[in-house]
This record gives sequence, structure tokens and C-alpha cells, in this order.
Amino acid sequence: MRRKPNPDQRRRALCDTAIRLLASDGVKGLSHLKVDRKAGVADGTTSFYFRTRSALLQAVAIRVSELDLKDLTAATRTQAPPGLAAHEPSGLATLVMRTATGARLIRTKARHELALQAARDPLLDKALRSHDDRFRTLITDAVLRLQDKPDPALAERQAYVVMMFISGLMQAFTNGDRSISSAEELDAIISGIVAGISPSTALR
Amino acid sequence: MRRKPNPDQRRRALCDTAIRLLASDGVKGLSHLKVDRKAGVADGTTSFYFRTRSALLQAVAIRVSELDLKDLTAATRTQAPPGLAAHEPSGLATLVMRTATGARLIRTKARHELALQAARDPLLDKALRSHDDRFRTLITDAVLRLQDKPDPALAERQAYVVMMFISGLMQAFTNGDRSISSAEELDAIISGIVAGISPSTALR
Repeated sequence: MRRKPNPDQRRRALCDTAIRLLASDGVKGLSHLKVDRKAGVADGTTSFYFRTRSALLQAVAIRVSELDLKDLTAATRTQAPPGLAAHEPSGLATLVMRTATGARLIRTKARHELALQAARDPLLDKALRSHDDRFRTLITDAVLRLQDKPDPALAERQAYVVMMFISGLMQAFTNGDRSISSAEELDAIISGIVAGISPSTALR
Repeated sequence: MRRKPNPDQRRRALCDTAIRLLASDGVKGLSHLKVDRKAGVADGTTSFYFRTRSALLQAVAIRVSELDLKDLTAATRTQAPPGLAAHEPSGLATLVMRTATGARLIRTKARHELALQAARDPLLDKALRSHDDRFRTLITDAVLRLQDKPDPALAERQAYVVMMFISGLMQAFTNGDRSISSAEELDAIISGIVAGISPSTALR
């Protein structure tokens, strides 16, 4: 006998369906009814869990942010200690390359749809950024591991530049750019950025 | 006596109005009639010049791309020769900072609206990229000037990383991020990226 999903599971499943709709049809292609139909649940289910369009979009943004954070946490946790497995690409680079293909590209596209909408919707913007501090911390930690001499203040600046680069790259991915073809190549670029942003850069 | 604008001038003016509409209301807020009303021309004018929604969006994308190219060409032409005016920020950095504010931010936002739409519309994507090769050449030239020993193949790779960084940064600008506060600061970061992406990075 299959258990009936509890409300939280149901909400998550509806958000996951909404993510696929956002990726394929954009913000304007999203509606409560379309989520119902695509999720194969009774008409009105999505409206029951998310009363307004705004509530639905915010819940989806939080879900995207949670899933991205989960991925990034796992990716940076599996990072090999310095010296060990030096020829393996970092978890960060492997994860970023994965956002260019398959199931992960769907979420990348949905995030971009939400980000654009968020420029005109402060509550949605807040939802989409609900884990930004954690992202920044995880990337800063990954950058710290690349430094010869640990310098946390500098690592924050380096992490900011790496994040902007990754953000631009992910946007290029959604438009089909595949100039970077492997996690090894991406890893070398990230290391290069970190090496290039020196204390004198930050202080100029 | 004021001359009647010729068709090309009229088309450009309508596209410029559409750019402002895209920035304020998004792709879904754009219509031929709204462009007419905002431009203060007779209802039907925009439809006369751009028969379909697709034709209008493509024309606007080409206009955005033309204006961006014009700005970048001017910005990189005024670049001081190495050694001279070393404390002046580069034209590139000054231009990118300018995209974060005022009239220029409107075009940045419009470009992002179009870019998202372009992910589902190959003709629009082509229009928006109509000057991408020229952009890449101008940035590569700017990067070459930063190299100690000119290496065109390496400059292409460095230019790609710089472009991805600038793209991510401009996206952050549209969402209100102002972590980088001056052209000098941005210039130091661009120089750092170029210094960090070395031949060994590219070959790893």
C-alpha cells in the first residue's frame, strides 16, 4: 500500500513540476492549472497549496535555491584535500559543467526565468536569494583551499569574481555556448582567476 | 520647419522606445500598440514598420546589439596606449560600470529580457548576436594590450573568461548588486583575470 504524500512532499513535487514548466515555457507559460495537468493531479490542487501566482513563484524560487544549495554543498564537501587526487577536477567545476546538460539544465533555465522576473518583484528576488549567503560561504571556502597562503578577506573578493564568472557562464550555457568542454578545463580557469586576483588587485 | 523623419530614423526611434518598454515591463509587457502610445505616434505606426511581433523583437535585438557595439568601439578606441595615463581606468571598465546606472541600465535590462526570450527563439537569438564576433574581437584586442608578451591565441581564451565575468556582473547589476563600486576596481579585476589565465591554464 502506497502512502499518501504528506503536504510538504506534495508542495515539493508541485514545485518540481513548475520548474520543468518554467524551463520549457517561461514565466508567462506558467499557471496553476498547467502545473496540475503536468503533475497529473486533480485540477485545483496547485491553487490549494499556493493560493496566488506570487505564492507559487516564491515557493518555486525557494525550491530552486534549496536544490542548488544541496548540490553545491555535496559538490564542495567531496573536494579532495590539497595534494590528494590533484588530477581530479574539483566538485565545484564538475557541478557547474553539469548545469549545462540534461536534468540540471532544466533548473538552470528555470533559475534564469525567475531571476528576470525577480528584477521586478522584490519578494521573489528575496526568495530566489534565500540561500545566497550559504552559496557565497561555500564558494569562498572552495577558493580558500586554492590559496597558497590562506587569506579570508582576499578569498571573499576572489569568490565574488569566480561567482560572477560562473553566473555568466551558466547564462551562456542556457544559450547553447559550449566553449568550455570539460570540468578539468573549467577548473584550470577558476584556479587562474583565483591566482590572478591578488592582494594588490584588491587594494588598487 | 522640421523635416519628417525618414523610415530608418522612424524605425530606430520605435526600437528605442521598445527598449524602454522591455526594461520597464518585460517581454510580456511589449506590444506594437504600447510602443505607438509611448512613442507618441499614431496607433498602427509600429505595426506598419514591423508587421509581426517576431519582426519587432528581432529589430529591437539588432538595435540593442548595434548600440552596444557602438559604445564598446568608442570605449576601446579611447584606450590609452600602455604606459600613458596608467592611472586612468580603461575604456572597457568605464563602459561596463556605466551599464549599471541611468540610461545605460535600461539597455542592459532590455538585453537580458531579449536574451531570455532568445533561448526559445533561434531567429531572435541570431539577431541579438548579430555583432558578437565584433564584440569578441574588440575585447580580445583590449586584452592583448594587457599582455606582457602578445599571445593572440591566449588572448582569445582570456577574452572569453573576461566576457563571461562581465556578463555575470551585468546580470548582477540588473538585480541591484553594487559590490564593485568604481571603474578602477573593475579594471584591477579584469587585469587580474588576464594575468591569472596563463598559457599553462589554457593547456592544462
